[in-house]
Amino acid sequence: MYREEIKVLDCTIRDGGLINNYQFTDDFVKAVYRAACDSGVDVVELGKKLTESDEYTREKYGKWNFCDDDDLQRVIDSHECESRPLVAVMFDVGRVDFSILKPRDQAPVDMIRTACYVADIDKGIDFAKRSKDLGYLTTINIMAPSASIRTDLIEGLSQINEVDELDYLYLVDSYGAFYSEQVTDYLNLYKRYAPNKELGFHAHNNQQLAFSNTQQAIIDGVNMLDATINGIGRGAGNCNLELLLNFLKNPKFHVRPVYKAIQEHLVPLRESIEWGFNDIYGISGHLNQHPRAAMKCRGDEEVMDLCYDFYLSSTRMDEDTLA
Amino acid sequence: MYREEIKVLDCTIRDGGLINNYQFTDDFVKAVYRAACDSGVDVVELGKKLTESDEYTREKYGKWNFCDDDDLQRVIDSHECESRPLVAVMFDVGRVDFSILKPRDQAPVDMIRTACYVADIDKGIDFAKRSKDLGYLTTINIMAPSASIRTDLIEGLSQINEVDELDYLYLVDSYGAFYSEQVTDYLNLYKRYAPNKELGFHAHNNQQLAFSNTQQAIIDGVNMLDATINGIGRGAGNCNLELLLNFLKNPKFHVRPVYKAIQEHLVPLRESIEWGFNDIYGISGHLNQHPRAAMKCRGDEEVMDLCYDFYLSSTRMDEDTLA
Repeated sequence: MYREEIKVLDCTIRDGGLINNYQFTDDFVKAVYRAACDSGVDVVELGKKLTESDEYTREKYGKWNFCDDDDLQRVIDSHECESRPLVAVMFDVGRVDFSILKPRDQAPVDMIRTACYVADIDKGIDFAKRSKDLGYLTTINIMAPSASIRTDLIEGLSQINEVDELDYLYLVDSYGAFYSEQVTDYLNLYKRYAPNKELGFHAHNNQQLAFSNTQQAIIDGVNMLDATINGIGRGAGNCNLELLLNFLKNPKFHVRPVYKAIQEHLVPLRESIEWGFNDIYGISGHLNQHPRAAMKCRGDEEVMDLCYDFYLSSTRMDEDTLA
Repeated sequence: MYREEIKVLDCTIRDGGLINNYQFTDDFVKAVYRAACDSGVDVVELGKKLTESDEYTREKYGKWNFCDDDDLQRVIDSHECESRPLVAVMFDVGRVDFSILKPRDQAPVDMIRTACYVADIDKGIDFAKRSKDLGYLTTINIMAPSASIRTDLIEGLSQINEVDELDYLYLVDSYGAFYSEQVTDYLNLYKRYAPNKELGFHAHNNQQLAFSNTQQAIIDGVNMLDATINGIGRGAGNCNLELLLNFLKNPKFHVRPVYKAIQEHLVPLRESIEWGFNDIYGISGHLNQHPRAAMKCRGDEEVMDLCYDFYLSSTRMDEDTLA
């Protein structure tokens, strides 16, 4: 599938950091940055930009949750690259102090992505505007739309459509609940109520559909695609960057450096942390549930493989009479 | 996705047996049969029907490679079932002795599936005719069409179209090489040149697309779908039965017994044999290569995780000048 407009965003560090509290070594982050450079991806997201506090300490939460300019610059300087990818960081609504953010021309960051639930879209818009005022490219990634009330989502999309300061609006399958038909349906909604916006897509692999749903998003006209090396990411993980680059025929992309990073850096990491499809995540995705229960289950050796028990408890939860 | 005509065929034992030489315990086969009964699948394939020889011994190749009537009957008798699934076995062209095959009304088998390459379609047709003469439902599963020359495939499809004795013609993604667009393209070819035949689809999961490609086949009108419990199968495995039943809204299907079988029988099996997506299989699928090199790689502890080396050797093989 070749379409010149297609851009790929590598969020290996940002989404992968959700499973190890951003405790990546500098070497690992540099290797991912290098793979991003050499593979020709357009954007590399190197972490979150939270504000340190008594609760959110650097020690506990890992330095890539804070992405200091010095840390980012060291990574960028570690690899010469003819045309380097843009560097992105993610904002979580409610955990950001704008006063520490320098203008883009004084910082090693190019793009600020704001993640928010439907209920917080107003805050997300405010963040995008303030980020754009400082010169950054901006995105709003609406989380868990599959669990939102349709009219609320439509209202949010309509508001977003009016925000000139926003460069990309993301459809995010936070729960890994979508089949291809839902990707198409939600994208139709996004296109209808936010026709001014360029769209992005971020998948999760709960039902082994992250890659195929990303293909569906391409078919439906989305030009900004998230992926991670080896599919690393919270729970069942994300769309595998290497599979996606294999699929895209755009000659600007090269998959070889991604396989190199997998062999040298991701395979060793798999010994200490787990990601990827599992029966437990399959159930959670099918039931359109937040992955927290599934992650808790997978984190407990006693029950991690008891998918039948997990299915019973998850569906019983659903079957409680709430009428 | 609900369509009344859709039938599901569980080939857990037959495709899973390819990774352990059909050395399943009777308990395991009975558990799979029970799950097939209780989940409401339409057909359960319990192995291959090869002929014993000095080369193909029962000891080495496992009894589910031979599927004696007594063995099958014991499995069927092990679980009471209101409306039991049809029982299928697979024939490999060239390894079958028809003289030992009883008529359907004297055997515990209902369906005979013949697997053949494009070059052997004439033999496959002969097998289907002889099986139908004995009263069996019949299928021809054309292997590796992605590696066949188009005109040869078309000729074979045209021949098959004239065979009244054939009940189902299968599109098989033997190399796990298809994206959804190829599924559609090949199905269009099958529909064009074999319009008289009911179609089936058998996927492999090399690129994490077995489930999504099976969905695509449904969208394209295929009504006979292969799947295996937990996706067990050669190499990257198959379409996961539990994911497929979750997707199909047909009330005749029940996923709970499948999760029970996974928890009690498949999870323990995962300790001794491996199946499922891996980077190595992803490369093999993308390059439309026979999975034998990938399986050999995964079977050697020294190199099993060296996906970069595997990518280099696999593509160098492709890049040799053959002009």
